[in-house]
Amino acid sequence: MEIQKETVSIFALGGVNEIGKNMYGIQYKEDIFIVDCGSKFPDESLLGIDLIIQDITYLKENRDRVRALIVTHGHEDHIGGIPYFLKQLQLPVYATALTLGLIEIKLKEHGLLRETELHEIDADSVLPFGQVEVSFFRTNHSIPDCVGVVFQTPIGNVVHTGDFKFDLTPVNNESPDIHRMAEIGQRGVLVLLSESTNAERPGFNPSEMAIGGHIEEAFRQAPRKVFISTFASNVHRVQQVIDAAEKTGRKLALLGRSMTNIVNVAAETGHLSIPDGMLIEPYEIMKLPPEQVAVLCTGSQGEPMAALSRLTSSAFRKVEVLPEDTVLFASSPIPGNEKNVSRIIDSLYRLRANVVYGSGGESGMHVSGHARQEELKLMLTLMKPKYFIPIHGEYRMLYKHRQLAESVGVERDNIFIVKNGEVVDVSKEEARQTRSVKAGRVFVDGLGIGDVGKIVLRDRKLLSEEGILVILVTVDKTDGELLMEPDTISRGFVYKPDAEELIAEVNEIVASAVQQVQKAEGSDRVVIRQQVKKAVETLLYERTKRRPMLLIFVMEM
Amino acid sequence: MEIQKETVSIFALGGVNEIGKNMYGIQYKEDIFIVDCGSKFPDESLLGIDLIIQDITYLKENRDRVRALIVTHGHEDHIGGIPYFLKQLQLPVYATALTLGLIEIKLKEHGLLRETELHEIDADSVLPFGQVEVSFFRTNHSIPDCVGVVFQTPIGNVVHTGDFKFDLTPVNNESPDIHRMAEIGQRGVLVLLSESTNAERPGFNPSEMAIGGHIEEAFRQAPRKVFISTFASNVHRVQQVIDAAEKTGRKLALLGRSMTNIVNVAAETGHLSIPDGMLIEPYEIMKLPPEQVAVLCTGSQGEPMAALSRLTSSAFRKVEVLPEDTVLFASSPIPGNEKNVSRIIDSLYRLRANVVYGSGGESGMHVSGHARQEELKLMLTLMKPKYFIPIHGEYRMLYKHRQLAESVGVERDNIFIVKNGEVVDVSKEEARQTRSVKAGRVFVDGLGIGDVGKIVLRDRKLLSEEGILVILVTVDKTDGELLMEPDTISRGFVYKPDAEELIAEVNEIVASAVQQVQKAEGSDRVVIRQQVKKAVETLLYERTKRRPMLLIFVMEM
Repeated sequence: MEIQKETVSIFALGGVNEIGKNMYGIQYKEDIFIVDCGSKFPDESLLGIDLIIQDITYLKENRDRVRALIVTHGHEDHIGGIPYFLKQLQLPVYATALTLGLIEIKLKEHGLLRETELHEIDADSVLPFGQVEVSFFRTNHSIPDCVGVVFQTPIGNVVHTGDFKFDLTPVNNESPDIHRMAEIGQRGVLVLLSESTNAERPGFNPSEMAIGGHIEEAFRQAPRKVFISTFASNVHRVQQVIDAAEKTGRKLALLGRSMTNIVNVAAETGHLSIPDGMLIEPYEIMKLPPEQVAVLCTGSQGEPMAALSRLTSSAFRKVEVLPEDTVLFASSPIPGNEKNVSRIIDSLYRLRANVVYGSGGESGMHVSGHARQEELKLMLTLMKPKYFIPIHGEYRMLYKHRQLAESVGVERDNIFIVKNGEVVDVSKEEARQTRSVKAGRVFVDGLGIGDVGKIVLRDRKLLSEEGILVILVTVDKTDGELLMEPDTISRGFVYKPDAEELIAEVNEIVASAVQQVQKAEGSDRVVIRQQVKKAVETLLYERTKRRPMLLIFVMEM
Repeated sequence: MEIQKETVSIFALGGVNEIGKNMYGIQYKEDIFIVDCGSKFPDESLLGIDLIIQDITYLKENRDRVRALIVTHGHEDHIGGIPYFLKQLQLPVYATALTLGLIEIKLKEHGLLRETELHEIDADSVLPFGQVEVSFFRTNHSIPDCVGVVFQTPIGNVVHTGDFKFDLTPVNNESPDIHRMAEIGQRGVLVLLSESTNAERPGFNPSEMAIGGHIEEAFRQAPRKVFISTFASNVHRVQQVIDAAEKTGRKLALLGRSMTNIVNVAAETGHLSIPDGMLIEPYEIMKLPPEQVAVLCTGSQGEPMAALSRLTSSAFRKVEVLPEDTVLFASSPIPGNEKNVSRIIDSLYRLRANVVYGSGGESGMHVSGHARQEELKLMLTLMKPKYFIPIHGEYRMLYKHRQLAESVGVERDNIFIVKNGEVVDVSKEEARQTRSVKAGRVFVDGLGIGDVGKIVLRDRKLLSEEGILVILVTVDKTDGELLMEPDTISRGFVYKPDAEELIAEVNEIVASAVQQVQKAEGSDRVVIRQQVKKAVETLLYERTKRRPMLLIFVMEM
């Protein structure tokens, strides 16, 4: 895009009109800054896709201008795309200690750790980049070490909240830095970008602190072993599990790779305090008296490959859920995961465990990490922005967030609900939303980045619903006569031993279609293929009301 | 199964350890009675499947003994399998007027209406079948005209509740017949089968009546047109929508085939009272002043082909959602449907409509049709069964229902949580759960009933995630030499124009694999196919980390 004079340009490459793959751009003249680089898991319609990331064509075209990738916190939807991004565009990365630790694990997996320029920052860091100065403010969320970002430009300040809530009694005693936010607002905010995940939910979140007591009580009442499952990255909750284990005289084992990873990083960066001798190895679980054991595991969303799911299928040789064991879900199913979670609860009951679960915090063991309506209004009130762009949310959340902003005094015309790629150009006098840059979804499948597109997905969908029939037709090169019985193979359509009659009918109709072509037009392969296809399609639909994919090879001999 | 003397045998062919495709069997000596015949919608793992029904092998093997299909109410999970059942086994069907009306629509669609023996019953009917007498009691649910069933056998009474709740101020003034239930309990219940859908939810449902006021208030406040979406079969809610329209001076249009169907049947059977001149046709919606119009439509679950979804995509030429129109969701998303519902809410906001929604009745416009814990305990208390079989629910619901039954005094050893097919044999003295009959899922795909099995589904899954590569290899019949360039076609794997290099590599490796076979072993087609397959698999996994299905044809010329 053309460089706008005395204008700061703001755009999303991911994260608006969707949850996930967050990425925002702030451009002032020749300097572009990127905030976050998340990934998103595909829904079931994206068959076989492993991950969705951003289309960063615009950044690659402007690679000389892109100064830094600034990461607000360590959740997948903010860091998951980083390795794929860095493979396309080398860039220095700025993040707090815990966030950086989690990014490093990813870079190591992709063999990118050595070549990447990483900078550790904290909430007090100030980064001068020519005309733009970048600073931070401390926020709360469901992972520690989160920051919001302030871009001080010659024409005004742009503030990006990252994900946040206001937990005034946080588990780590690191309150959100309301005083600094007030100062920032006092100095003047030209544009605020604020997250919208919970903009539909009224009220103010309870404190994470409230959960500790419920966990401790459940640990105390459990007659035998207790398993507790939560998001590995929720380090504050992990701390409360450790505290509850200590208070109730239980040793704690960790199950699940991401749990071990994050506990290690969090302990190294000082975000977890683990008493000596508290942690035991999985093989020790069954050796101690059961009332002295707690197990913290991944899989609270019912993920089939995570620890909790594997426990119910006896995939751990040395750890078993036994009758009268207790299983606690310190979590709430994310929409879409309900069925998987339910399946695991069923399995745990079959093992005769006591199971404590509930959606939306009914069990007292879960609170959300995202600001609700009153918290969003508090942020808007502190920042007093002239212009407001609600980010990180589906359309209805952005829409509600706009209503909230209006209710605290932001002018309706100064609020911009954007699509990914749409640019808001803000000068001292006005803001306009007239341009856009390239944006979209890029699919990761195995090693391939972007090589699976719409046509491949359309084929996968057709194949998945109706299967495929491959028919091999061999005809005489000179006169188009059928030389041998057609060879028909079906996959995902009907199972051949069950459907011999139908396959025989297909072969008959293929033969007669070839004969007709031969009589009328000779031996043109394209015509033969078309006629055979038409005849077989009609037959199959009549017999089965299905339309499998047809691949027809016509061989001439 | 062997006929048990002086025993009543009870089994489920669907509906336990699952929600949906309900079917229960009650057998006394030579007489078998079937309660309900539902269908179930497949989850996304059952690729391409349209419907799931029961395996009724046992009933077909005992066709001379099966006396009747008794249907408790008109929901899909209780009637959806009837046409498929009747195609396999002719049987007289007994149901109340509304239920029968809905069954008739299905039978007509399948061309079965004329040949089926249908009997209308009401809550006072008594059906003598030799040694067994069948009678009924009136219940409440989210569709009118529901009954529970009593089987009076020489050794005791078996009671099946159907789906129910206790709404003591129902919209149609037809209270649940608590007095008759008390009488039945007083006479003695040997076995109770009771539904478990909401066994996890504490408390007692609010009355459906409470919803009317909220709908009326929303109608009154809506400045322009109001659209309201709910389950078509919730006739009581439809009545309250009609009442609200009348009280607020709006005409009502119906959108969606199932809405029109059910309103017609319900009006004919006296379950709906519609003021003269209230209903208007869809083409009239845009002609009246918008504040005088309400539209009742299907699609509250976000179904892509239902009316509400089609409204957002402008699929109705004559009806539009305009800015300041109001859209009410008088419903709660069923687990699994959240994403589709959210998508529609987003689209409605984009059209600048006011949208009122919420899960679990937050908007005051939805209550569940299924008894919660206190209601389940009330049923158990009224019936005082000696033996109890919780039905209609996933395992954790059956498990909770067992706990509820114990809490009101049913002995633990007298409660049976069964799997589909497992038989509980009850005599005057004891109950045993030792035998089972054939049970399972049968898939309907297009016209095929049961012709898509595990292998086809496995293939569809593989195809959907990785696609397919078909390779045609032509070799000389005499010496196995490759006669022409291999022909490779991919579908759902990589898109060929993007992947020409990879396909060229595949063809090279195919050629070299054929050459190697030729040198070592000559021209065996099976060997060539194996070697080609191995070589291509290795190459593709190395290059892409994917394993598409491979179909290799070796032609000899």
